[in-house]
Amino acid sequence: MNQQYESTNIFARILRGEIPSHKIYEDDRTYALMDVMPQGKGHCLVLTKSPSRNLLDADTEALSAAIATTQKIAQAVVKAFNADGVGIAQFNESAAGQTVFHLHFHVIPRFEGIALKPHSGTMEDNAVLAANAEKIRAALAEL
Amino acid sequence: MNQQYESTNIFARILRGEIPSHKIYEDDRTYALMDVMPQGKGHCLVLTKSPSRNLLDADTEALSAAIATTQKIAQAVVKAFNADGVGIAQFNESAAGQTVFHLHFHVIPRFEGIALKPHSGTMEDNAVLAANAEKIRAALAEL
Repeated sequence: MNQQYESTNIFARILRGEIPSHKIYEDDRTYALMDVMPQGKGHCLVLTKSPSRNLLDADTEALSAAIATTQKIAQAVVKAFNADGVGIAQFNESAAGQTVFHLHFHVIPRFEGIALKPHSGTMEDNAVLAANAEKIRAALAEL
Repeated sequence: MNQQYESTNIFARILRGEIPSHKIYEDDRTYALMDVMPQGKGHCLVLTKSPSRNLLDADTEALSAAIATTQKIAQAVVKAFNADGVGIAQFNESAAGQTVFHLHFHVIPRFEGIALKPHSGTMEDNAVLAANAEKIRAALAEL
């Protein structure tokens, strides 16, 4: 299994500010943003700032920070969208569905009777992403 | 959203030793075991020992411990089964697929071209679970 980290991946470029994102949260070790190809309303991503390919090569401190931020974002999306639940997914290598090789956690609000769309499906409208990001930031501020 | 913890859930009973499990790892804060209805070969679960319903009500130390153990088990299953990847999933509330209301992380080895079976599907044979647990414990010892 390939375990090399490539700093040209899209999340590394977002973290360097080279390309824009719908940011919802940032601290010293983590960065959270809207997934531009959401599997459901309010689908977010939590990135570590340290350069890990995935869970398999991450250091313990980065993982602790990532799961703490993942919890915050999960609580915020439930509040922001009045969700019935929330799913967390973290994929390691292509066989598991990983498409960007920089450690990230998916946070996906869930609603009774609404199935998820496929991973890496359709690009969401920018205005929708911006509006959802604003709702989540507002919910985070109230946690 | 209901956030009450019920100590009669099956994972709490396993942690109290009231019912058996195929244990693969244990430390002060976490307990890892084979999923008896695996979605794929070597499907494991990581439980926190503290009584959280799910990610939404967990404390930070329990989460740090859970993700550290999840990483260990992920590394071990890749080694044990020569997996092509590994998926992590963590479900919060029924709408997200949670069926046991005690915080747990799924660790599922993935293999190119092999899809996952449905969550909570068919009970696996005890001998298969025991053999897989032994392989994972051996891989853990070599990490």
